[in-house]
Amino acid sequence: MASTFMARAIQLAVDNVRSGRGGPFGCVVVKDGKVVSEGVNRVTATNDPTAHAEMLAIREACQKLLCFELKGCELYTSCEPCPMCLSAIYWARIDKIYYGGLAEDAAKAGFDDSAIYAEIRQPLAQRKIPMVQTMREEALAAFRAWEDSPGRTVY
Amino acid sequence: MASTFMARAIQLAVDNVRSGRGGPFGCVVVKDGKVVSEGVNRVTATNDPTAHAEMLAIREACQKLLCFELKGCELYTSCEPCPMCLSAIYWARIDKIYYGGLAEDAAKAGFDDSAIYAEIRQPLAQRKIPMVQTMREEALAAFRAWEDSPGRTVY
Repeated sequence: MASTFMARAIQLAVDNVRSGRGGPFGCVVVKDGKVVSEGVNRVTATNDPTAHAEMLAIREACQKLLCFELKGCELYTSCEPCPMCLSAIYWARIDKIYYGGLAEDAAKAGFDDSAIYAEIRQPLAQRKIPMVQTMREEALAAFRAWEDSPGRTVY
Repeated sequence: MASTFMARAIQLAVDNVRSGRGGPFGCVVVKDGKVVSEGVNRVTATNDPTAHAEMLAIREACQKLLCFELKGCELYTSCEPCPMCLSAIYWARIDKIYYGGLAEDAAKAGFDDSAIYAEIRQPLAQRKIPMVQTMREEALAAFRAWEDSPGRTVY
């Protein structure tokens, strides 16, 4: 079963490249043994740097299941998720990840997955994109408003 | 100038909570001293776990500037970006990040930013969401197709 879903994720990745629509990545979200959604990389085709295969598959699965979490779902992706997609998988509370290629395979093909993982592991002050902290006291007002909001939907 | 944009990001965050539309986060993307786009957290309102303030602001900026990268842009966010948003910032090639609250402030208010940062720093085998590697050889076909594709748009 698992190999069928992984084969589909890989096929999506290959087809995406051959059709010239985007990068070599495909993804399938599965629940109860059935495909809920599929995604392919559409960064360049849609001018959206967040349009990775996993992101689009997660977003579509949530639209179909009418929820903002995917508990009980598994994700099959043709390559180890980049840190953006891995974090999205955590935010979506997905149960399990199957992946084909490694981050280093993506790196070898010219993608920054490994480089971004390395950046995240750096202390903030040593990262390549400068990060400037400012106005923390003012910013805490948003969290105070959140905590004072009895009808808030926690996620 | 910087304080005006940060104040705007914070105001967006506070307004978003007060209107009951989502979490306490706001973001502004700026180019050449002018606001290009704004974003607020819309996870629960739109059933989209990826709909963080930074993600929506980046996506809208790209739509407005008709490109998949945001070189020359700065991002102002009411709170330190979660790893999903930080990675998106790297993928978008943004020049500089200004942030208000810290990841620990978000954690104190019940958000998983710090927990997900901790997960990413763990070796794959020790992460809470199981990661199963499979079919690497088959998956490499996608990268081979990519490298054999002369008209590919690199990102």
